[in-house]
Parts: sequence; C-alpha cells; structure tokens
Amino acid sequence: MSTLLKQTFAAAALSTAVAGVAQAQHDFDRPAIEQVLSSYEAALNESDLDSVLPLYADDGVFMPQHSQPSVGIEAIRAAYVAVFEAITLDVEFEIDEITQISGDWAFVRTRSDGHVTINATGDRFPEGNQELFLFNRSADGQWKIARYIFTTTNPPRQ
Amino acid sequence: MSTLLKQTFAAAALSTAVAGVAQAQHDFDRPAIEQVLSSYEAALNESDLDSVLPLYADDGVFMPQHSQPSVGIEAIRAAYVAVFEAITLDVEFEIDEITQISGDWAFVRTRSDGHVTINATGDRFPEGNQELFLFNRSADGQWKIARYIFTTTNPPRQ
Repeated sequence: MSTLLKQTFAAAALSTAVAGVAQAQHDFDRPAIEQVLSSYEAALNESDLDSVLPLYADDGVFMPQHSQPSVGIEAIRAAYVAVFEAITLDVEFEIDEITQISGDWAFVRTRSDGHVTINATGDRFPEGNQELFLFNRSADGQWKIARYIFTTTNPPRQ
Repeated sequence: MSTLLKQTFAAAALSTAVAGVAQAQHDFDRPAIEQVLSSYEAALNESDLDSVLPLYADDGVFMPQHSQPSVGIEAIRAAYVAVFEAITLDVEFEIDEITQISGDWAFVRTRSDGHVTINATGDRFPEGNQELFLFNRSADGQWKIARYIFTTTNPPRQ
C-alpha cells in the first residue's frame, strides 16, 4: 500500500470514528436536557429568579408573549423579574420532542398546562402554552437555554 | 517522521480542512435562507396557500398562537387554510439573527410588524410578532421550514 493510501485510510478511519462518537453523543445528552427542563419548570412554579437565570446561556434570548425579545442575560433577568412580579404560575410541561442537532445544539418542543394567578388581583385563569427551546452546550459542558419562545394554545379572550 | 506520526498529521490536516469547509458552508447558506423568509413573507401577505406549503419540510411543525401545534404537512395545510379564511395580513419581517448550526440546520429570529384585517368584519388592527424558525436542508439541497413558532409582541388586549 502506498504511503498516500495509508494516510487516506487512516484519515478516513479517524473521520468515521469521530462521526461515530458525534452520533452517540447526539443521543447521549437527552437526560441532561430533560434535567434542565425539569429545573426550569420548578423554578417557574416557584417564581425563583435565582434558579431560572443559571439555566440560560449568557448570550441567550427569551421571547415572551406580549414583549419584545430579551437579548442577553441582563435583559432576561429583567424580563423574569417583571413576570414574577405580575403573575404566579402553576404549570406542568410535557415534552413533545427533543432533537439533538449536533454535539452542542439541540431543540425541544413542549406544551405546558395549568393555571396562572394575577398577583395584583388574585384572579386565576387556565394557562396553556406551546414552547420551542434551543439548547446550546457551554464550554464547561452544561446544556443551557440559548433561545426560548412560547405562545398560548388557548383561544383568544373574547 | 514515523509512519504513525505522518498518518496522524495527515488525519489532522484532513480534519482541519473538513472543519474549514463546514465553517464556510455554514456562512454560505444565508442568502438561500433569506430567500425562503422573503418568499414566506410574500405568501403570507397574499394569503397564498400554494406558495406557503412548499416552504415547509414534509415533517415540519407549525406552532401558531391560539392553536395546538400542527405536526406534518397535512396539519400545516389545514392550519393555513384556517388562518387565511380568518384574517388577511399586511406585515413586514425584520431579521434579527440567522445562525447556521451545521451544514443542514439553521435557526432564525425575526420580528414582524404591520396590520391584520379580520375577514368576517373588515376590522383592521396593528399586528406585531416575534418569530423563531428552525430551518433544515432537505435531501435535494433546499432549505425548508422545519419548526416555526410566533407570538405577539403587542400588549394584551384590555
């Protein structure tokens, strides 16, 4: 075998090995992503700002209904302060899909159902939403919320 | 240099070359994705079902406000039939971000502004939304909408 061919085979073998690792890795991270979703659900229901913020990437974007996008962790903090001042949530998330695109990126579709209480009045309403999350793995290996948007699945209020 | 080292260097060089190609490819597809967004904007404003549907992947998911997710092209078709029967849109999209994650996946954040006319009554309201798209490149090389969700940026109606 020529040296060139040997090198080509070696490179191809390495490439296949790398692809194999990447594929295995794609499936492997689901439990870690589910853990972040579970932590997010708990933090929301407890209106717990200090638990929500570490779940986000520093350059994350939060796109809440009835607001402009909150870009970056300081804007995200301000948005959740406003949310937790205005309402108290009692919701449960159901995961419809977790798709890992690469070693460092995944997206998740969920729906959430429960109730929302308006803090100012104490009024309580049924709450139903659908959510799309983009997750990115940070340099330290932690999966973080990189982009997050939700929208109501309830009919418009009359 | 030992044969092993030569092979390792050859593999590393190939790996770097492949990474370079992948990186270039990530940046290269932005015009194609922008073209799909532009086609989507036009199709929405013309209530043109036949132009909207080919922009979606067959296994795409459309997550419109006030509805459950529409999973797969037939459910997406039914959702747009309902949308175009109910309202007429006159909106313009602004792209906040296009991030290509891999050779075949990208996400896009946009905001849209304009007006919506309720077909049943002729009433016209200001419309403002934020959108998150996931794009996937199909086997024939076309970028398609794989997941799409939007939510209003307007304050709640009193």
